Amino acid sequence: MKTDIQIAQEARMLNIFQIANQLGLSDDDIEAYGKYKAKIDLNVLKKFEGKKDGKLVLVTAITPTPAGEGKSTVTVGLTQAINKLGYLSVAALREPSLGPVFGIKGGATGGGYSQVIPMEDINLHFTGDLHAIGAAHNLIAACIDNHLHSGNLLNIDINKITWKRCVDMNDRALRNVVIGLGGKANGIPRESSFQITVASEIMAALCLATSLIDLKQKIGNMIFAYDTTGKPLKISDLKIEGAATALLKEAIKPNLVQTLENTPVLIHGGPFANIAHGCNSILATKMALKLSDYTITEAGFAADLGAEKFLDIKCRKGNITPNCIVVVATIRALKHHGGAKELATENVEALKKGISNLDKHVENMKKYNVPVVVAINKFITDTDMEVNFIKEHCDRLNIPVALCEVWEKGGQGGEELAKLVLKELGSEKDNYKPLYPLNMSIEDKIKTICKEIYGASGVEFGKNAKKMLSTIKELNYGDLPVCISKTQKSLSDDPKLLGRPENFIVTINELRISAGAGFIVAMAGDIIDMPGLPKKPAAELIDIDENGKIEGLF
Amino acid sequence: MKTDIQIAQEARMLNIFQIANQLGLSDDDIEAYGKYKAKIDLNVLKKFEGKKDGKLVLVTAITPTPAGEGKSTVTVGLTQAINKLGYLSVAALREPSLGPVFGIKGGATGGGYSQVIPMEDINLHFTGDLHAIGAAHNLIAACIDNHLHSGNLLNIDINKITWKRCVDMNDRALRNVVIGLGGKANGIPRESSFQITVASEIMAALCLATSLIDLKQKIGNMIFAYDTTGKPLKISDLKIEGAATALLKEAIKPNLVQTLENTPVLIHGGPFANIAHGCNSILATKMALKLSDYTITEAGFAADLGAEKFLDIKCRKGNITPNCIVVVATIRALKHHGGAKELATENVEALKKGISNLDKHVENMKKYNVPVVVAINKFITDTDMEVNFIKEHCDRLNIPVALCEVWEKGGQGGEELAKLVLKELGSEKDNYKPLYPLNMSIEDKIKTICKEIYGASGVEFGKNAKKMLSTIKELNYGDLPVCISKTQKSLSDDPKLLGRPENFIVTINELRISAGAGFIVAMAGDIIDMPGLPKKPAAELIDIDENGKIEGLF
Repeated sequence: MKTDIQIAQEARMLNIFQIANQLGLSDDDIEAYGKYKAKIDLNVLKKFEGKKDGKLVLVTAITPTPAGEGKSTVTVGLTQAINKLGYLSVAALREPSLGPVFGIKGGATGGGYSQVIPMEDINLHFTGDLHAIGAAHNLIAACIDNHLHSGNLLNIDINKITWKRCVDMNDRALRNVVIGLGGKANGIPRESSFQITVASEIMAALCLATSLIDLKQKIGNMIFAYDTTGKPLKISDLKIEGAATALLKEAIKPNLVQTLENTPVLIHGGPFANIAHGCNSILATKMALKLSDYTITEAGFAADLGAEKFLDIKCRKGNITPNCIVVVATIRALKHHGGAKELATENVEALKKGISNLDKHVENMKKYNVPVVVAINKFITDTDMEVNFIKEHCDRLNIPVALCEVWEKGGQGGEELAKLVLKELGSEKDNYKPLYPLNMSIEDKIKTICKEIYGASGVEFGKNAKKMLSTIKELNYGDLPVCISKTQKSLSDDPKLLGRPENFIVTINELRISAGAGFIVAMAGDIIDMPGLPKKPAAELIDIDENGKIEGLF
Repeated sequence: MKTDIQIAQEARMLNIFQIANQLGLSDDDIEAYGKYKAKIDLNVLKKFEGKKDGKLVLVTAITPTPAGEGKSTVTVGLTQAINKLGYLSVAALREPSLGPVFGIKGGATGGGYSQVIPMEDINLHFTGDLHAIGAAHNLIAACIDNHLHSGNLLNIDINKITWKRCVDMNDRALRNVVIGLGGKANGIPRESSFQITVASEIMAALCLATSLIDLKQKIGNMIFAYDTTGKPLKISDLKIEGAATALLKEAIKPNLVQTLENTPVLIHGGPFANIAHGCNSILATKMALKLSDYTITEAGFAADLGAEKFLDIKCRKGNITPNCIVVVATIRALKHHGGAKELATENVEALKKGISNLDKHVENMKKYNVPVVVAINKFITDTDMEVNFIKEHCDRLNIPVALCEVWEKGGQGGEELAKLVLKELGSEKDNYKPLYPLNMSIEDKIKTICKEIYGASGVEFGKNAKKMLSTIKELNYGDLPVCISKTQKSLSDDPKLLGRPENFIVTINELRISAGAGFIVAMAGDIIDMPGLPKKPAAELIDIDENGKIEGLF
């Protein structure tokens, strides 16, 4: 069996100008980065202002196993399939982070015959967006410590600096550090921390920005510390939001690439799906909607995390209306939720038990008044009996369901799903509304998500969280939406509770104000924003030959 | 008076494919990064293998004042001038680091009417080379700490890890840090440090590599620590030289841009000129020699640092022959060396005293058997009397000298210098030989440089350095060239000794083996490999408007 990278390297790519032309873009609308990647000028949004938007499909998933459920693969396969049916469809995806590429999870360009290419380039640096975000973030960090070192005119409380440094690498040794050691010339000693670049608030802000100036304002509004009187200090107090934004002048432009079947893909932005909202950029999604009939996008982790944030944060901030939601399920994961240990052998009993996880996610998505479709992402080990069980289960509950074989067969393997999605879109039954209104209190917003989406019976706020609830009110941030940072391994805040947990209480330990990105982060449990490497990192398998051909990337 | 960035933004740029065509390159030989930047395929070297190399001119300088003496400006101006005279000339420059851009020094694309453009892009990220080097460097760092965390099979001595982390930012608070805090899950606590990315050995290796595979071998050979028995441990012991090199597959390709007068410039690599050799890449220089009649290149800091290393390390490793050396002098700096405090007013007396600094650098360069020319880089405040004094002084010593007004007048202001350089090149009096043979002992190599180039009366080796001298011998690294890390502010190792210091002893405190890059670093004094920001960083002046137009960069 061929590996993903072998399939990708055998593909015949079209020049990126040809891909741009498919979208009605002129050569001047894009800036090529080599022959197969390009940045799209933001003026394109203005140029196509009068054109009607296409329809928007969100791909999300059930609660995942560590290997992921193949959201990206289904997203790419579905867009390939719709193009095969004769419509213009664009996938709008997130950018991979280098950390997982060298760690355990691998890249993020789909798999099998549903991949985005050139996969090596996209997984390694791409057009430099993540590096630009890292540089802007670390410029701010250096200026904060320089301000401390230069007399601390702003009266920064050294114990209340919330701005970390970042690196686009899985590096657990940087989670807790002491910096500024070595005497007066080398800064002021203090405890600090590094996060992975995708966890930077700048990444979240870039993905929620609607223009370069909007991004500059968002960066200026970010809180980096509190002063000794408890007053929040913003990046604009350091007067460096202009410099930080200058570093992002190219990163804010969406990137254009192609699928294995030479259909267009926009890849742009990739914020964490726990401490941030986990979706690609508003600008890329808006552009895809202008340039195509059908935009297929995805959101990180399961529907309780990425999709909820897509629907309550991104769509609202971007004034974007989703028209259909696809929930990806795998038989393997549902058996896992049903308590099975051996996932490669037939086990309809476990499937029967575990399917409650799918049911809950489908129920959740229906709360947004958008048609919901289930896609069974087929693995080689799945049996007919198992597939039929899910299909019958969904039929009984009146949930449209399709078998999806895009990993094995590319677009052709996604035709059943594509036809189903097009049918739902054609019915025009969508009438998107967010889960909660913005003028609801932060406390009630959190409770609403925990009860309605996670299925919790209640919410408890820790001491610090309670204090922050009143601070947020005082500082007038009460109208922001809420971004709950929670384990992706369970619908609850306890990673061990599989299936459809009930009668549990979510504990919120801490609240953080992402005043630039524009949401309140509620921490349910300890969320690590700097992953570690496994004992044998994927980096050991990666090699390159004298012609620049890479092997071992996945 | 217009600022550099205003002049740059008013320039009419040619499409990068047109610039490539000037060099005889086809559209397929380059990969465009936007409309005005490109990477050149390494296969070009093979394609033009049979073509005779052009001539090579090195631009270096006297001991600088903090503002620099305008080497880049003269290099760019000289290449513009030679093109104006009807020959094909290419400048081969180093890439700017983000640190100085936001700190105090500004960018590195020349000034006035002798600049490389697009200056904003080149100064901010460019084609991502520095970020790629940083990522490769930090991947290795993460794998080292991951190895410690995972059982330390290699028996790394935790107190003898020489590999730092890096960031492309001036961030003094990262000079001395403690990492791995917070308990078992978060790594092993230890002291460590960050250096600025350009100080990474990977940057030095990339600049000295002759192919992708050569680079992979160099990275594999790098020593990152010693084990508990004192044996050096190499990156290849971690099995990640392939992954690190994969991250550099684009970074190893030279970048093509243009001057304000639309003449071609290669910008590639930018290692520190103290702990590394301070020159652009061998690959870019070799490519420029193949593609043009005259290649003009530069080396960091003054002739005692950058030029010495260019001549004894880079030329030797790359099998490159320099044909002429230009020593740039400014009247301001020579007055400074003569003890003047007020540099903007006429002071021939100070000039008379300070000119000994120029004399020494010229004498030094002549030791390499290559014709030497002096360029007086004219400032507005220089008087005729002062200019005439230098000219007469050089005439008396039989040193060819030219006034250079390229900052004010572009290529036209460099015609006098260009004609002089072409005359020297035409005389074919060059017969390059390095200062010392490689089979000389490391101790004697260091003594030779200190006495012959710096003018020291002797060299003292500290206790650690003495120990390392024998270690280097034992480990068979004795045949490597030497890279002395010394203050750039004086010909001696004491930054306060201006002019032409005499009767001083250089103290070597420490020796480091850069086994991958392929040289021994001898530390003369405390060299900081992580600069700091000034009280009011340049970042505060930089801004960007809604059209992406940047101001305040310099």
